[in-house]
Amino acid sequence: TSDKANDKDEIGIVRGLAWTSVGGETLQIEVNMMPGKGEIDLTGQMGDVMKESAITGMSYVRSVSKDYKIPQDTFKKNDFHIHIPEGAVPKDGPSAGITMATAILSAITNIPVKAQVAMTGEITLRGRVLPIGGLKEKILAAKTAGIKTVLVPKKNEKDVEEIAGEIKSGLSIHFVENMGEVLSYALVNADSHIGKGKKE
Amino acid sequence: TSDKANDKDEIGIVRGLAWTSVGGETLQIEVNMMPGKGEIDLTGQMGDVMKESAITGMSYVRSVSKDYKIPQDTFKKNDFHIHIPEGAVPKDGPSAGITMATAILSAITNIPVKAQVAMTGEITLRGRVLPIGGLKEKILAAKTAGIKTVLVPKKNEKDVEEIAGEIKSGLSIHFVENMGEVLSYALVNADSHIGKGKKE
Amino acid sequence: TSDKANDKDEIGIVRGLAWTSVGGETLQIEVNMMPGKGEIDLTGQMGDVMKESAITGMSYVRSVSKDYKIPQDTFKKNDFHIHIPEGAVPKDGPSAGITMATAILSAITNIPVKAQVAMTGEITLRGRVLPIGGLKEKILAAKTAGIKTVLVPKKNEKDVEEIAGEIKSGLSIHFVENMGEVLSYALVNADSHIGKGKKE
Amino acid sequence: TSDKANDKDEIGIVRGLAWTSVGGETLQIEVNMMPGKGEIDLTGQMGDVMKESAITGMSYVRSVSKDYKIPQDTFKKNDFHIHIPEGAVPKDGPSAGITMATAILSAITNIPVKAQVAMTGEITLRGRVLPIGGLKEKILAAKTAGIKTVLVPKKNEKDVEEIAGEIKSGLSIHFVENMGEVLSYALVNADSHIGKGKKE
Amino acid sequence: TSDKANDKDEIGIVRGLAWTSVGGETLQIEVNMMPGKGEIDLTGQMGDVMKESAITGMSYVRSVSKDYKIPQDTFKKNDFHIHIPEGAVPKDGPSAGITMATAILSAITNIPVKAQVAMTGEITLRGRVLPIGGLKEKILAAKTAGIKTVLVPKKNEKDVEEIAGEIKSGLSIHFVENMGEVLSYALVNADSHIGKGKKE
Amino acid sequence: TSDKANDKDEIGIVRGLAWTSVGGETLQIEVNMMPGKGEIDLTGQMGDVMKESAITGMSYVRSVSKDYKIPQDTFKKNDFHIHIPEGAVPKDGPSAGITMATAILSAITNIPVKAQVAMTGEITLRGRVLPIGGLKEKILAAKTAGIKTVLVPKKNEKDVEEIAGEIKSGLSIHFVENMGEVLSYALVNADSHIGKGKKE
Ligand SMILES: [Ca+2]
Ligand SMILES: [Ca+2]
Ligand SMILES: [Ca+2]
Ligand SMILES: [Ca+2]
Ligand SMILES: [Ca+2]
Ligand SMILES: [Ca+2]
Ligand SMILES: [Ca+2]
Ligand SMILES: [Ca+2]
Ligand SMILES: [Ca+2]
Ligand SMILES: [Ca+2]
Ligand SMILES: [Ca+2]
Ligand SMILES: [Ca+2]
Repeated sequence: TSDKANDKDEIGIVRGLAWTSVGGETLQIEVNMMPGKGEIDLTGQMGDVMKESAITGMSYVRSVSKDYKIPQDTFKKNDFHIHIPEGAVPKDGPSAGITMATAILSAITNIPVKAQVAMTGEITLRGRVLPIGGLKEKILAAKTAGIKTVLVPKKNEKDVEEIAGEIKSGLSIHFVENMGEVLSYALVNADSHIGKGKKE
Repeated sequence: TSDKANDKDEIGIVRGLAWTSVGGETLQIEVNMMPGKGEIDLTGQMGDVMKESAITGMSYVRSVSKDYKIPQDTFKKNDFHIHIPEGAVPKDGPSAGITMATAILSAITNIPVKAQVAMTGEITLRGRVLPIGGLKEKILAAKTAGIKTVLVPKKNEKDVEEIAGEIKSGLSIHFVENMGEVLSYALVNADSHIGKGKKE
Repeated sequence: TSDKANDKDEIGIVRGLAWTSVGGETLQIEVNMMPGKGEIDLTGQMGDVMKESAITGMSYVRSVSKDYKIPQDTFKKNDFHIHIPEGAVPKDGPSAGITMATAILSAITNIPVKAQVAMTGEITLRGRVLPIGGLKEKILAAKTAGIKTVLVPKKNEKDVEEIAGEIKSGLSIHFVENMGEVLSYALVNADSHIGKGKKE
Repeated sequence: TSDKANDKDEIGIVRGLAWTSVGGETLQIEVNMMPGKGEIDLTGQMGDVMKESAITGMSYVRSVSKDYKIPQDTFKKNDFHIHIPEGAVPKDGPSAGITMATAILSAITNIPVKAQVAMTGEITLRGRVLPIGGLKEKILAAKTAGIKTVLVPKKNEKDVEEIAGEIKSGLSIHFVENMGEVLSYALVNADSHIGKGKKE
Repeated sequence: TSDKANDKDEIGIVRGLAWTSVGGETLQIEVNMMPGKGEIDLTGQMGDVMKESAITGMSYVRSVSKDYKIPQDTFKKNDFHIHIPEGAVPKDGPSAGITMATAILSAITNIPVKAQVAMTGEITLRGRVLPIGGLKEKILAAKTAGIKTVLVPKKNEKDVEEIAGEIKSGLSIHFVENMGEVLSYALVNADSHIGKGKKE
Repeated sequence: TSDKANDKDEIGIVRGLAWTSVGGETLQIEVNMMPGKGEIDLTGQMGDVMKESAITGMSYVRSVSKDYKIPQDTFKKNDFHIHIPEGAVPKDGPSAGITMATAILSAITNIPVKAQVAMTGEITLRGRVLPIGGLKEKILAAKTAGIKTVLVPKKNEKDVEEIAGEIKSGLSIHFVENMGEVLSYALVNADSHIGKGKKE
C-alpha cells in the first residue's frame, strides 16, 4: 500500500526505507514506551537480524542516555514496544537500525521527529552508521512518498553518485557517519536538546 | 457453526470478521482481565501474525490508558486472556487487530460493546487502521449473522464500492482511519467516556 | 482399559468423554491445587489445543471466582496440576474444556462432583459451551462405563436426536449452553453453593 | 550392566523395573532434595512421558503432604533432582510413576525404602495405580537382580497369572491399587509413619 | 592439540579422559564459582547427556555439602560456570561425570586437585561411579599426556585387565566405586578435609 | 567492507581477526555496560560456539574482577551487550574469545584499548589462550587494515613461522599464553592498572 509522508512531526514514529523484491518502499517504525519492568516487544514479523538491530538500537540509546538527560531507571521502569506495520509482511535485515534507534530516542525524550525525513542505515552498538543495499530503489520510494530529506550512510556515498540525477532531484540527501549526525538531522530542534556541534 | 449476533451488549466480547478458504465467517473475540501480575494468555490456535496483532492491540490500549482513566498499574496487577473460539480451528492474519484492541479496552474499562457491530482491520501501535483482504466474504458473513453495523478500514473504501449493492443493503458500513473512530462507533455511549469529538 | 464410573462423588475429579480412532472412551480428569506461586502443570500428553482448553477453563473459573466465594489470591498463592491418565496416550482437541473447568472449580472450592455424571463440550472464555464431534461413540462409552447422566452441548442437540434410542436408553442426557448449567448438573448440592436459578 | 539389589535400605533410592527392546531390567531411581527455591531437575535422558510421570508423582506427594507431616513450605524452599542412571540410555514411558513417587516421598521424609522391594506401575495425580506392559520381562529381571518383593498394579493381575510358576517362584508379588498400598509395602516401618489401615 | 599434564595442582580444574573417533584424548574441565544467584552456565559445545551429567554432578556436591563444610547458601548466592575447551569441538556422553563433580567441589572448597591425576566415569546422583567405554584409548592418552595416576570405575576392572601391560606400565590405576574414593585420590590432602576413612 | 584501524584508543571496542570463505577480515567487537540486572545480549548473528565464547569471556572477567578492582556487584547491577557488526553476516567459532574478553574488561574498567592492536585466540574459563586457524589470512587482513600489533596464541607459533616474511613485515607479532599477557599488550597503560609483571 502507498504510504505518504506524515503531515506533522510525531513522537516515536520514524520513516524508514525498505528494499523488497518488488522495489523500494517506505515504512513507519512505531515505538511506544509504557510504564513496566524493562520488557521489549518486537512485532511486525521481524526476522532475527532485524530484531538484533532493534536490540542494538536500544542499547545505543541506553549508552547515550546521559547526553539526552534520560533518567537512569527509564529502561528498568518502562516496557518498550517496537512495531513495523504491515503486520503480515515478513521483514528482515539491518538497514532499519538507525531508524529504530531514532524512534526509540524520540519515544523516550518526547522530542518529535521531522515528518519530511526518511533514513536507512545499519547501526552499531556505538552508534556508527554502516552501509546498506538497495539505495536506488529506496530513494525512489522516498521521493514517491513525498519525502524531502533522506539520510544515507556515508559509506554509501559512491552508490548515490551513480544514481541518475532526475531521481535525486528535489531530494535533500545527507550522508551520515554516526547517530549523532542522524539525530541532528531528524529531531525537531535537535540543537536545543544537546550541545550544539556535539559529536559522539 | 453459525454464530448469530449477540442479543445484548457485552463487556470484553467483540464481533470480528474472518476470511477463510470456505468463505467469510464472524467470530467473537473474548477478553478476560483477572487479578495477576501482567501475564498475557493468547488461546484459540492463533498464528504468529495474529499473536503479534494481539500484543500490538494491548500496547495501543496501554498508550491511551490516560484518555480512558485506566489506572497506571492496571497492566502490572492483572493478567489478560484473549481467546477466540472455536479452539481447534487455526487462525492467523492481522485483520482482527482492531477487534482485539476494542475487546481489551472494553474488558478493562467495563464499557460494553454494541452487540450489533462487527469490524475488521489491522491495527498499528499508534492506533492507525490499515486495510485488509476478503472484504466481500466478510461483509456477507456479517449480514448473514444479523449484524447491523460494520466497521471497515478507510483504505478499503474502493473495495467496498465494488461490492454489489444487494449484498450491502441493510448494513450500515463505516470507514475508519484510527482506533478513536472505531471506539466511538463500537462502545456503548462512547461519547460519555471520552471527550466528544476527540480524535487521536 | 475399561474405566468404570466412580463409586463415590469426588473432589477435583471429573469424568470426560473422548473420541479416538478406536471408538469412544471415558477418561477421568484429575486436578490438584497445592500451595505455590500460580504455576500450572498440564500432564498426560495433551496436545496444543487441549492445553489451550485447560488454560481457557482456568481463566473462566478465575472470572467467576466471586460467585463461588473463591478468595482473590487463590490463583497467585497456589499451583495447579491438571492430569489426564493414561499418561502415554496422546490426547488433543477442545472437547474436554467443560470437564476441565468443572474439575478445576471442584478442586478449588472443595465441592464434590457427582460420580454418575460425564460430560463433553468446548468451553469459551466466557463459559459458553460449543459443540463437539463423535457424540455417538462418546455416549456409547458413557453407557458402557455405567454413567447415568451425560451433559452435551445444546448445539449438538440434533446429533443426539439421530442416535438410536436403544443406545440412549437408561441415560439421562442434558443439553447445556453455558458453564452455569454444567455446574448445576455436575456439582453435589450445586444450588446451595450459588444462588438458585442464577445464570451467567 | 547388571544391577544387584541394594545391600541396605536407603533414603531417596527406589528400585524400578524397565522393559526395553532387549528384555527387562532393574533401574534405581535416585532423588535428592536440596535447599533451594522449588526447582525440579530431571536427568537420565528421560522422554516426555516419563518427565510428566515424575511431575505427576511430585504433585501426588504434595497432595498427601499433610498425612506425612511434611511442612507446607517444603516444596517452595527446596530443589529436587530426580535422576535415573545410566545417563546415556534414553528412557521413557509412564511405568516408573509409582517408583518415582516413592523415591520422592522417601527423600522428603527421610523414611528409608526397603532394599528388597522393586515396583512398576503408572501413577495418577490422585495416587491411583494404572496397569503397565512387559510384566514377564520385568519380573524376570527382578528375580535375576535378587529382589524379594515385587509390587504390580492390581489391573495387571491377569497378566501375572499367565506367567510360568517357575519364574515367579521365590518372589513375593503384591497387587496394588493406590499409592497408599505401595508405600505401606515399600517404606521401612510404614505403619509407624501414617495411621495403620489408612487408605486414601 | 596435545594437552600435557598441569605443572602444578590447581583449584577448579580437573583432567578428564575422552574417547573420540580419532582415539583417546585428555581434556581439562574448568569450573568457576562467582557471586551470583544460582545460575549454571555449561559451555564447550556439550551435548544433552553431558549437560545432564554436569547437573547431576552439581546435585551430588550439594548433597554432600555438609561433609565439606560448604555453607548452605553457597548454591543460591553464586553462579557456576563449567567449561570444557576446545570450544568448537562437540562433546557428549556421561563419562566426564566424576571429573566435573570433582572440579565443582574443588572450585567451591578451594581444595586443589592433584595435577598428575586423570579420571573417567559416570556419576549418579548419590555418588556411585558407573562404568564407561573406550578405556584402552583413554589410558593411552593419559600416558601420552604425562599423567601418573588414573581413576577408573570399579566395574571396568575387567576391561583394564585386558589392556596390554606395556600400555599400563608407569601408570598407577585405581578402581573407584563412589565419589568418596574419587575425591580421596584426587584432592590434595584429602584426608585433612574430611574424616579419614569416611565412606559415603 | 574495508575496516581501517581506529584513529584513537577506545573503551569497550577491540579489533578482532576473522577468517571467512573469502579471506581474512578485521572486525570490531563492541561492548556496552548499562545499569540493569545482569542480563547479557549477544547480537551480530553469532553462532552457538561464538556465543559460548562470549559467555566464557564474561566469566573469565568475573573471575579476575578483584585484580582489576571491579566492585563485586558489577555483574548483578548492570546489563551487558556484546555486538559484532556487520549485523547481517553470520559469524561463528571460538577465535574471537580473547577479543571479547578484552572488550568486556575495557568496558567495565573504562581502561581504553590501544587502537593499533588486533588479536585472535580462543579463551578458556581460566584465561588460557588456545590456538586457532586461518592465521595467514588474518595477518594479511590486519596489515591491510593498518594494524601495527597482532596478538597470536603461543601454540600457533609454528604457523606464524611458515608465513612469508613480506606478509609479516611492518607488523609486531606477539605470542600469548594467557589473558594476563593479552591485556598487558592491549590495554593502554596496562601496568598502572595491575601490578607490574603480575601473571595469572
Ligand atoms: Ca506496503
Ligand atoms: Ca510482555
Ligand atoms: Ca465456525
Ligand atoms: Ca500464566
Ligand atoms: Ca483407555
Ligand atoms: Ca513448576
Ligand atoms: Ca543396564
Ligand atoms: Ca536449576
Ligand atoms: Ca585436542
Ligand atoms: Ca546467566
Ligand atoms: Ca566486512
Ligand atoms: Ca533484555
